[in-house]
Amino acid sequence: MRFASGTTSNGVSERLFDIDGIPGVLWSPAEATGGRPLVLLGHGGGQHKKASGLVARARHYVSSCGFAVAALDAPGHGDRPRTEQDERFAAGIRERAAGKPVGSLIADYNTSLAVRAVPEWRAALDSLQGLDDIGTGGPVGFWGVSMGSAIGVPLAVAEPRIIAAVFGLTGREALVEAAARITIPVQFLLQWDDELVPRESGLALFDAFASREKALHANPGRHVGVPAFELESSQRFFVRHLLERESGPV
Amino acid sequence: MRFASGTTSNGVSERLFDIDGIPGVLWSPAEATGGRPLVLLGHGGGQHKKASGLVARARHYVSSCGFAVAALDAPGHGDRPRTEQDERFAAGIRERAAGKPVGSLIADYNTSLAVRAVPEWRAALDSLQGLDDIGTGGPVGFWGVSMGSAIGVPLAVAEPRIIAAVFGLTGREALVEAAARITIPVQFLLQWDDELVPRESGLALFDAFASREKALHANPGRHVGVPAFELESSQRFFVRHLLERESGPV
Repeated sequence: MRFASGTTSNGVSERLFDIDGIPGVLWSPAEATGGRPLVLLGHGGGQHKKASGLVARARHYVSSCGFAVAALDAPGHGDRPRTEQDERFAAGIRERAAGKPVGSLIADYNTSLAVRAVPEWRAALDSLQGLDDIGTGGPVGFWGVSMGSAIGVPLAVAEPRIIAAVFGLTGREALVEAAARITIPVQFLLQWDDELVPRESGLALFDAFASREKALHANPGRHVGVPAFELESSQRFFVRHLLERESGPV
Repeated sequence: MRFASGTTSNGVSERLFDIDGIPGVLWSPAEATGGRPLVLLGHGGGQHKKASGLVARARHYVSSCGFAVAALDAPGHGDRPRTEQDERFAAGIRERAAGKPVGSLIADYNTSLAVRAVPEWRAALDSLQGLDDIGTGGPVGFWGVSMGSAIGVPLAVAEPRIIAAVFGLTGREALVEAAARITIPVQFLLQWDDELVPRESGLALFDAFASREKALHANPGRHVGVPAFELESSQRFFVRHLLERESGPV
C-alpha cells in the first residue's frame, strides 16, 4: 500500500493510495490515532472513487461519527484502464441508449465486475486494517447502491469482517442467490419509480436477504433520485451497528 | 377543555384532560412556556391513550425534541363507553379468532370509527392550540399505525394543520381514496410478514399517497413487531418537518 498524496480540510484527512495497482482514497479524522470503525464505499456504474456524492458521504461519516471511510476505483472505472470487455459494455450501453432496455446487459457486466472487484476489496481491507488509525479490531461496514451493490452483495458474502451494509437500487437478477446468504443487518434503498430496476425486482431482492434485521427504505423518484435525508438514515444505521454494536431488533 | 390531574417525571409533564366527554392526555416539557410543535398520537385497535408504547413514544418526543404530544381515547376504546356497534365488532373478532380472516371486518369497523373520531380530533386540536405552551402558530404532526392510520389518514385529509404524518400497518382497503388526497410528507411503516395486512395491500396503499415526499420503511416481522429503531427514525422525520421545516426533497 502506497500513499500518493494527502490533504486535510475541515478536520477530515483525505489520502489517495494504491494497492497493487488499484487506486483508492481514504478519509479519516485529521490527526486520528487508535482503531476505529471503517466504512467501505462502492461507487455506481460510470462513476469513480471520488464522485461528488461519495466524497460528501465520506466526509459526513468522518465528521459526524469519527469513522474511517475508503473507496476504490472499480475495475474499468476512474483511473483504471478499460479492458476489451469494459469497452464492449460501454459501446453496448451507447448503442441501446435510444430507449432500449439495458437491465440484463448491466446485470451481466456487473456480475463480471464483481468477480474482479471482490478480491481487490478484500486485499484492500487487509492493508487498511494494517494502518494505525484503523486497526484490525474495529467493525467494518459497506455502503454501495446500484453497481456498488452488484459488487457489495457478493463482497459481503465473502468477507466476514463486514458486519452491516447499505445496499439498493438493484434487482433480483444475478444477486438473489448471494442475497440469500447474507445474514448481517441490511438497509436497502429502493426508488419507487426506478427506470432501470423494475419495482418488483427490487422488492424481490429485498425479500431474498436472510438477515434478521433488514429495512427497506423506498422513496419516490428515479434511479439517481435518492433523497438527501437517506444519508443521515444510513449514518444512524452505521452508528447503531459499528459504534453502539447493537445486536439487532428484539 | 378540563384538566383532571397531572404528574411530572424526568422533565416531562403528563396531564389528563377531557374535551366534551372525550378523554385525552397531553405530554409536554415541564414548565414549558411559549409555542411549540404538537404531535398527535393515534393508538391501535383495542389499545388506549396511555398504552405503554404510546407513553414511551410521547415521552421520547418531548424529551428529545421539546414537542408537545397528545393522545385521545378512540371511540369505543379506553375510558369511553362502547356502543352497540363496538360490542358487535368485539364479538365478531372473538368469533373469528380461530384463524378466520378478519381484515375486512377490521377495515369496515375502522372506517366507521374514523367517521366518529375525525371531528373529535379536530375539536381537540382547537383546544390544544389554545394552550399557552402549544399555541396556534406551531406545526402539527400525526403518528398512528394500524387503527391509528385508519383514523389518521382521513384526519390528515380533513385537517390542514397537520403538515407531516407517520402512517402504516394498514392496507388499501377503505383508505386508498383518502391516501390519494394526501400531499404532506409521509413516513409509512410496513411489516413484511404482517399476518393482518397482506404485503401487496400495504404496498398499494403506500403507492396511493400523492405526497412528493413519502418514505416506505419495511421491516421483517409480524403486525406488532415494528423494530425499536423506527422510533428514532420517526423522531428524525418530525424534527425535519416540524422543527427544521424542511420543504421536502430536492
